[in-house]
Amino acid sequence: METSIKRKRTRPVFLGGVQVGGNAPVAVQSMTSTDTRNVRATVRQIRKLEEAGCEIVRVAVPDRVAAAALSDIKRQIAIPLIADIHFNYRLAIEAIGNGVDGIRINPGNIAKEKILKIVESAKSRGSVIRIGVNAGSLEKDLLKKYGGPSSSALVESALRSLAVLEDAGCDSIKLSVKASDVTTMVEAYRELSGKTDYPLHLGVTEAGSIVNAAVKSAIGMGILLYEGIGDTIRVSVTGDPVSEIGVAYAILRAIGIRKFGPDIISCPTCGRCEINLFRLTQEVEERLAGMKTHLKVALMGCVVNGPGEAAEADVGIAGGKGYGLLFKKGKAIRKVKEKEFVTALLAEIDSMVAERKEI
Amino acid sequence: METSIKRKRTRPVFLGGVQVGGNAPVAVQSMTSTDTRNVRATVRQIRKLEEAGCEIVRVAVPDRVAAAALSDIKRQIAIPLIADIHFNYRLAIEAIGNGVDGIRINPGNIAKEKILKIVESAKSRGSVIRIGVNAGSLEKDLLKKYGGPSSSALVESALRSLAVLEDAGCDSIKLSVKASDVTTMVEAYRELSGKTDYPLHLGVTEAGSIVNAAVKSAIGMGILLYEGIGDTIRVSVTGDPVSEIGVAYAILRAIGIRKFGPDIISCPTCGRCEINLFRLTQEVEERLAGMKTHLKVALMGCVVNGPGEAAEADVGIAGGKGYGLLFKKGKAIRKVKEKEFVTALLAEIDSMVAERKEI
Repeated sequence: METSIKRKRTRPVFLGGVQVGGNAPVAVQSMTSTDTRNVRATVRQIRKLEEAGCEIVRVAVPDRVAAAALSDIKRQIAIPLIADIHFNYRLAIEAIGNGVDGIRINPGNIAKEKILKIVESAKSRGSVIRIGVNAGSLEKDLLKKYGGPSSSALVESALRSLAVLEDAGCDSIKLSVKASDVTTMVEAYRELSGKTDYPLHLGVTEAGSIVNAAVKSAIGMGILLYEGIGDTIRVSVTGDPVSEIGVAYAILRAIGIRKFGPDIISCPTCGRCEINLFRLTQEVEERLAGMKTHLKVALMGCVVNGPGEAAEADVGIAGGKGYGLLFKKGKAIRKVKEKEFVTALLAEIDSMVAERKEI
Repeated sequence: METSIKRKRTRPVFLGGVQVGGNAPVAVQSMTSTDTRNVRATVRQIRKLEEAGCEIVRVAVPDRVAAAALSDIKRQIAIPLIADIHFNYRLAIEAIGNGVDGIRINPGNIAKEKILKIVESAKSRGSVIRIGVNAGSLEKDLLKKYGGPSSSALVESALRSLAVLEDAGCDSIKLSVKASDVTTMVEAYRELSGKTDYPLHLGVTEAGSIVNAAVKSAIGMGILLYEGIGDTIRVSVTGDPVSEIGVAYAILRAIGIRKFGPDIISCPTCGRCEINLFRLTQEVEERLAGMKTHLKVALMGCVVNGPGEAAEADVGIAGGKGYGLLFKKGKAIRKVKEKEFVTALLAEIDSMVAERKEI
């Protein structure tokens, strides 16, 4: 980690106990894929998300039954709850009345006079409003003006609704300008960040299934976070939302701005590799799944980069033929047989995690 | 795609028929995980890599038997072959004699006077040399000087060996300064790019298994490519190297600098989604695996962003309840039942691919 990234200082907002913006760490959020009207399934999914490290959760509110379910859901979860609202401002008001910590509105499908009614309600309950612009649902006049969902069109949409909220005296605001096209998204957030100091929620929208979503989100958010832009992130994955959390923390870890969970360094097993490194990596990943302590774990197949990487890690194995050298805090501590790699590594990891907890 | 990235113009080198640097497209490469001495297995893996879109392939050459196998391998494959050499300069000379298109040497483990012998041989056969610096195997004096494998230490290692090659009259050179730490890697390549105009081979080394490797590679390479830095890339995945190719093209597609293969836009299925989008996405991905034509395919779960995204794609589905609207080139063309989504999409894709081939 060489660069100390200078994060842009934004105005803080508070979602329940979680601060977003200001000097707060970049918060990781996700959205449920369950039917919100099914309280039990939704709460179950949110708890799994919490366990994985999700810090803010959003649920879709497509109708009044879903809006009514929010107070039940809210009561059973520990992290701030956001209602995702489209088309119908009344659902926003009901959601706020049911105690959500924030709402997301889409200026592409809620008109100005309806937004004003939402603001009134949000102000009275202290709810945060996110103006969530999306390239897939931009206002028709902006699409016409810009010839399509360009970065400037996204920014104009956000700023226009922002002016409505500010005029109405609302200041608990987050902004997002998501697009499925990574370069459009990057340009839009850069432009927006230059024009406001409200906290920004970053996302590449409709990013696809896990590997594609990881690539697109990592590039888009990676470029912005590296420039100091972004206060909260949501990775969109077509699939189990729990997988979004792992990708989100991998991004923040790689950029060096949050240390959460193990960072596994493992080589791509070339023709020099004399141990079953793929199986070792899979096994170690499985055994460390859910671990929140940050440790750098190196799993290396040969003597070229093995000792160097293992020495830089908190704990590591540099494999030889049928055996490996176990490293801890930069020092080779002993030779271990291949079949004992996992046990030996986990024993060291357990003791390091225990040590850190004692501090 | 909004930004036209201005790529830094580097000196071109030629690996067989493949140009790297200059105005050539960013080339995608990989490395085999087979035992190079096993010619059959190695050739089989290289052919799978070729089929997936790999444009340059590297193999480990740990001993003389592996070096001897190279001419047999070279004869049976279509893409340029690179020998990966550590410790023993004689293996580099044998590899060059056996007809490889290029070699990669690691200045961390081959001394200057040995490098000079390699250069002599490479010059006589027109082979390209990559100076492949790796944070895991840096020269001891540089580790001492910089207190560890910092970005400046990586760059100094590369420049020091570069001077040796230049003094010996070699100019078919590529450079790389890989690290497993993403920010170190980004800073090292930025610094190196400012100091030389040789083509750069980008990589985040020891990046881990697929999702972590996708995240780290996408951030590191994404930031650099977006700045115009990088002439060829290799994604390192602990696992099947064929998976590296998909990630590499996903990065280049997202940055907008190469159009290769389908770009699948699909939403993360929130509580609004009334179709089985996860299954649809999986099925479409499977059916389009191996497709090289670039098409934007949108698979959208609801009416919020569905029509907008589908209209921006070459072909798309915007799902409703049990049915969806099929879009082609920006226009809704007809309503389709959910069980016919895949057939209808693939028929449109087939006809679009056929049309493009005719041009």
